[in-house]
Amino acid sequence: MRLCLDLGYAGSEFSGWARQPGLRTVEGVLDEALAVVLRLDGPPGLTVAGRTDAGVHARGQVAHTDVPAEAWTANGERVLYRLSGLLPVDLRVWGVRVAPEGFDARFSAISRRYAFRISDDRVGVDPIRRSDVVWNRRPLDADAMDAAASELIGEHDFAAFCKRREGASTVRTLRVFEWQRHANRLLEATVVADAFCHNMVRSLVGACVAVGEGRRPASWVGDVLHETGRSSEVMVMPPHGLTLEEVTYPPDGDLAAQALGSRRFRG
Amino acid sequence: MRLCLDLGYAGSEFSGWARQPGLRTVEGVLDEALAVVLRLDGPPGLTVAGRTDAGVHARGQVAHTDVPAEAWTANGERVLYRLSGLLPVDLRVWGVRVAPEGFDARFSAISRRYAFRISDDRVGVDPIRRSDVVWNRRPLDADAMDAAASELIGEHDFAAFCKRREGASTVRTLRVFEWQRHANRLLEATVVADAFCHNMVRSLVGACVAVGEGRRPASWVGDVLHETGRSSEVMVMPPHGLTLEEVTYPPDGDLAAQALGSRRFRG
Repeated sequence: MRLCLDLGYAGSEFSGWARQPGLRTVEGVLDEALAVVLRLDGPPGLTVAGRTDAGVHARGQVAHTDVPAEAWTANGERVLYRLSGLLPVDLRVWGVRVAPEGFDARFSAISRRYAFRISDDRVGVDPIRRSDVVWNRRPLDADAMDAAASELIGEHDFAAFCKRREGASTVRTLRVFEWQRHANRLLEATVVADAFCHNMVRSLVGACVAVGEGRRPASWVGDVLHETGRSSEVMVMPPHGLTLEEVTYPPDGDLAAQALGSRRFRG
Repeated sequence: MRLCLDLGYAGSEFSGWARQPGLRTVEGVLDEALAVVLRLDGPPGLTVAGRTDAGVHARGQVAHTDVPAEAWTANGERVLYRLSGLLPVDLRVWGVRVAPEGFDARFSAISRRYAFRISDDRVGVDPIRRSDVVWNRRPLDADAMDAAASELIGEHDFAAFCKRREGASTVRTLRVFEWQRHANRLLEATVVADAFCHNMVRSLVGACVAVGEGRRPASWVGDVLHETGRSSEVMVMPPHGLTLEEVTYPPDGDLAAQALGSRRFRG
């Protein structure tokens, strides 16, 4: 039986999502907690929508796990409350349910939405938000950054902005990439794509920061986009400004077809 | 020469504002940093708009300090950048300037605005916001809480909601007290008054939570308001949900008169 989990975490004290021996990772902590609350012989293993790096946060992360049907039917909704009691406060599971037919947390997803938050105040970041906001010492021009971001919208090969993985496509469809300035010198990027390659959001943001500081014209990000390998001129921003906010899925009837298509396309 | 400082801090690792021997307090850390950057013989002492308790945060706190004129003229704006380098990341000074004639950070203020943030999600608080949001296990009715809050607006003796201080008035004018529900099961109270007595915001919020949980009718808070001593039925909410957001002052010409009036009234 496949279970679908909605979850969130503060990335600061995790070495990223993926299980690694000897390190505290989100997958490791959650997988072991599931084994306890479902009374399994060992961790059931997890598949996640967005494999976040060390330090990256998530508010709307989605994962699935396959468990013996009796492990769920014996416990049902109580699993949620037991997880809540067992998990540390920097990792919360908001909901657990039986996944619909054809559901795959990673490959059925049709889009991921990330936020990246920067303060360009001259003396630093609001202390209350210092764990999810990056400080940029130089003032940023949010309009110029927004203009740069709009150059990148659409289906492109984002190789210049990605850490290459052998045999995997770096073609993605960037649906939304926009910058807004809020109170207290906080800038927020909203970034939506079908999926992201490794380091992609933090590199897209880094390119916009170069424009926002006036070091590059907005059109420069379009030039970078045409490079066929990873660009050495794009700064990868620090992880703690990045939060996975939301993952969306198609109607239940399309889950299996979407998973098949994504697997084929992204390898 | 009187200097006015705008500052913010995360209260989690401070034992409140007021200097206490052997404890890490905001006043203590800031006062000592000022002595260093202004090259004074010792801490100059500080007067603050809102003396926050241990664990309470501030985004728009205001303080003043009196220093020899040459300490400022010799350093000027550089003081701000030196403070930024010297202070810990959980305490930021946003601005330093010469205070206008008659300015007193505490007594010239005409209003203080606080926010109190609660999550009533069944499994806990968004991990990214766990340092400034309090978890309430039971679901809350924001409309009922807002109705209760509105019963308290106006000039009243808030003795029932205050930790008494000998000889001090507990009459205050509550200008705004309202509840809003945001995404992710976050409730936020906005509370504005001319000034607050000790524990007052956390008690006002505690009274609304009793209503929001359905344990009391909205009209009950009005009954509490008529009690002449501190009510034992009102829960004081945990400090980390509370943030001092803003302090406002009258036009420069009215600063001295406002200070005189506040001193007379609040003793």
